[in-house]
Amino acid sequence: MVKRTSHGAARCPVARPLDAIGDQWSLLILRDAFEGTTRFSAFQKSLGVSRNILSVRLRNLVDHGILDTAPAADGGAYQEYRLTEKGRGLFPVLVALRQWGETYFFAPEESHVVLVDRKHGLPVRRVEVRSQDGRLLGHEDTAISRIGERSTDTT
Amino acid sequence: MVKRTSHGAARCPVARPLDAIGDQWSLLILRDAFEGTTRFSAFQKSLGVSRNILSVRLRNLVDHGILDTAPAADGGAYQEYRLTEKGRGLFPVLVALRQWGETYFFAPEESHVVLVDRKHGLPVRRVEVRSQDGRLLGHEDTAISRIGERSTDTT
Repeated sequence: MVKRTSHGAARCPVARPLDAIGDQWSLLILRDAFEGTTRFSAFQKSLGVSRNILSVRLRNLVDHGILDTAPAADGGAYQEYRLTEKGRGLFPVLVALRQWGETYFFAPEESHVVLVDRKHGLPVRRVEVRSQDGRLLGHEDTAISRIGERSTDTT
Repeated sequence: MVKRTSHGAARCPVARPLDAIGDQWSLLILRDAFEGTTRFSAFQKSLGVSRNILSVRLRNLVDHGILDTAPAADGGAYQEYRLTEKGRGLFPVLVALRQWGETYFFAPEESHVVLVDRKHGLPVRRVEVRSQDGRLLGHEDTAISRIGERSTDTT
């Protein structure tokens, strides 16, 4: 793999997760995991990526506690990769990314897949940022504030 | 740069944006842009990244219409990088990533920065996925559905 800068000690909650998921293949593996993919061969078929890259990325996701491995549910010889609670916590991130992709990367008449609520089959609501009292917030309505005892470094 | 697979023609709205933002530096540039950073030198200082990498990533974000450039507002010699409407559309993605980072990458007593509503200074609400009728949805409550006329390829 390319030598990468580690953000594991960053103070910023956007930066610190990037060692775990800050590359395209990890995000696509997670997309597939949310859609029910569990096996190495199925990830490989979906992503069209080399075994080596897939292997490294899956191991990295397991090392970060985002996926875990277990014997196949059907008793087969292969292990399954499953989202942990931490991994499932990425659902809003993936949905927000998906909705942004739908809005800005597809022509109006262009076909694509959408995420729907299983109960009614309707697309899920747009993911939004809101204040504690329910106001819709844009980035200009927000600011960064420090909590905790240290307040020196910024990234 | 490392040779990368292009997802620009993917059918999936998670995959297609990854040419634009699917790497750690682009996400950190966007984080800084949302916090008001506009100048090359300021991005470089914040990120501690080489001029070459920063330059390539900024150009890629401009090429994808996520940032644009303009003469400095103070009339200075340097150009400013500003979020476009498309770029601002990433706000919920960054907030969701930030909140996931806060939850899983920091110890309970560990200090970090938080995003607050400027009006009241309170942390913003947790970003959630909800159905059209307002139910909180986990990934197991959702499914992928195809819209449009084509329905063959999946990634």
